Amino acid sequence: MTHQQPTSPRRTPVTVLGLGPMGLALAEALLEHGHPATVWNRTPEKADSLAAKGVRRAGTVAEAVSASPVTVICLKDYATMYAVLDSAGDALKGRLLVNLNSGTPDEARTAATWANGRGCAYLDGAIMVPPPLVGHPESVFLYSGSRQVFDAHRAALASMGDPRYLGSDPSLAVLYNAALLDMMYATMNGFLHAAALVGSAGVPAATFAGLALDWFMPSVVNSTLTEQAPALDKGDYPGDAGTMEMNLNALEHITRTCAEQGIHSDQPRLMKAIAEQAIAQGQGGKNYLAVFEVFKKAAQA
Amino acid sequence: MTHQQPTSPRRTPVTVLGLGPMGLALAEALLEHGHPATVWNRTPEKADSLAAKGVRRAGTVAEAVSASPVTVICLKDYATMYAVLDSAGDALKGRLLVNLNSGTPDEARTAATWANGRGCAYLDGAIMVPPPLVGHPESVFLYSGSRQVFDAHRAALASMGDPRYLGSDPSLAVLYNAALLDMMYATMNGFLHAAALVGSAGVPAATFAGLALDWFMPSVVNSTLTEQAPALDKGDYPGDAGTMEMNLNALEHITRTCAEQGIHSDQPRLMKAIAEQAIAQGQGGKNYLAVFEVFKKAAQA
Repeated sequence: MTHQQPTSPRRTPVTVLGLGPMGLALAEALLEHGHPATVWNRTPEKADSLAAKGVRRAGTVAEAVSASPVTVICLKDYATMYAVLDSAGDALKGRLLVNLNSGTPDEARTAATWANGRGCAYLDGAIMVPPPLVGHPESVFLYSGSRQVFDAHRAALASMGDPRYLGSDPSLAVLYNAALLDMMYATMNGFLHAAALVGSAGVPAATFAGLALDWFMPSVVNSTLTEQAPALDKGDYPGDAGTMEMNLNALEHITRTCAEQGIHSDQPRLMKAIAEQAIAQGQGGKNYLAVFEVFKKAAQA
Repeated sequence: MTHQQPTSPRRTPVTVLGLGPMGLALAEALLEHGHPATVWNRTPEKADSLAAKGVRRAGTVAEAVSASPVTVICLKDYATMYAVLDSAGDALKGRLLVNLNSGTPDEARTAATWANGRGCAYLDGAIMVPPPLVGHPESVFLYSGSRQVFDAHRAALASMGDPRYLGSDPSLAVLYNAALLDMMYATMNGFLHAAALVGSAGVPAATFAGLALDWFMPSVVNSTLTEQAPALDKGDYPGDAGTMEMNLNALEHITRTCAEQGIHSDQPRLMKAIAEQAIAQGQGGKNYLAVFEVFKKAAQA
């Protein structure tokens, strides 16, 4: 791995709770960036490889938390986090908890209140890379909570990846994380479904990828979405270059083509239904991006 | 506009049937690239601006088709095309019809058979740019049908845009067109829905776009989809770096977050259902791209 640096007393000591594949990667990255590191895991054997490299293995959560001003939490979920931290009692007081569990916005806000009530500073975070990329300077970690706390510990956070501060509401990191993954799955499904559609005529996915991803996708992402994002904030969807009604025609056509070719059509049928909802809500003469207005509201059942 | 060239007797004369915004753009591009151009439209006034520039206006379809070895068809649909061409009778014989209507694969194959039965060569095509971009050398036009016919007329086709040949099955152009738009809508919906999700906490879409489109999207498109497309053709979805079950957890989490934030959740709920279908079909230990196997089959109702 890169970024090897000698352990230095000037680097903040950091504790990591939870040694799944991600926790192990975090502890290793901290160690490699020169932070005195302490770890705790319910099954202590998980720390064997780290201990051999100079990481301190704590016998109890209280001992682990007491070893460092900053504790990074990488446990299964928020319920597990409460159970583990409760056992630390007063050792938590005055320390920073950096919670990298995944969870919902409500869970993140509740955890921040819980931590503050125990005298802890709290940042909620989300790791946007798989374990092998942890520790690289371009690996994005999302954080939310107190800006002052984030700034004070930025150097330690930067040893795990590229720390991006999103705002003081502690739920923002998990919310962004959910939104980015939401976009990722929709984008992957879009390509996979389209590849299945041309695949029904014997076109290899790798052949289709040349046109779909190398040529077409950049124009969708750059010329349409990036350029139009500010218009979403203004609710400004002029239909001069193409209306929702025209897009509904195209979606009907796509749905019919999927049925004709005998492939799965739930996804185009939902896209068609969403365009129909937009029209029912008065967006028929606007451009396609007005489906943003549909998405902002919970669906009527 | 660019690419202005003097009309030259060496350029193939081309006829355009149908003068909607797209037909007008096609005729204009052909004229600007030096092709003697003839047009016909049900309402002849649509040709007024072109006539002033030197385009010949034909009084009947037979006269229009007779004026050029190549006729480009840009009408509403296949039914309209049959109605219009039927009136040309024997004038069709020995000419090339380039049909740029949108339609389904079955419609394209039927039209090819119909045209061949009347002694015409036939190419089916799809225009992948809006009218203002017609005529630019980087504007993609998809074509399918006889390779020999395509090659023989490549120069004329290149005057309208960048002609891409997809294969001899005449349905390939409309099939690719449907698939590319299918991917486009899914990708746009992915971003729009994700923007609505962070928007529920007051994050502007333009702020989210910075992280979502500039940073995250390229890794989804390049590192995941482009890199993995050949694996789709092999049906090879190793789950070592993350299984379908893990992705289902993430999708459940996203769906819960959308409900918690009070936004539209049909789209994440369908993505979750698709992952569940993949697991039900035995793909639980494979990676996420195995949803390709779900998409290849018509859904069980």
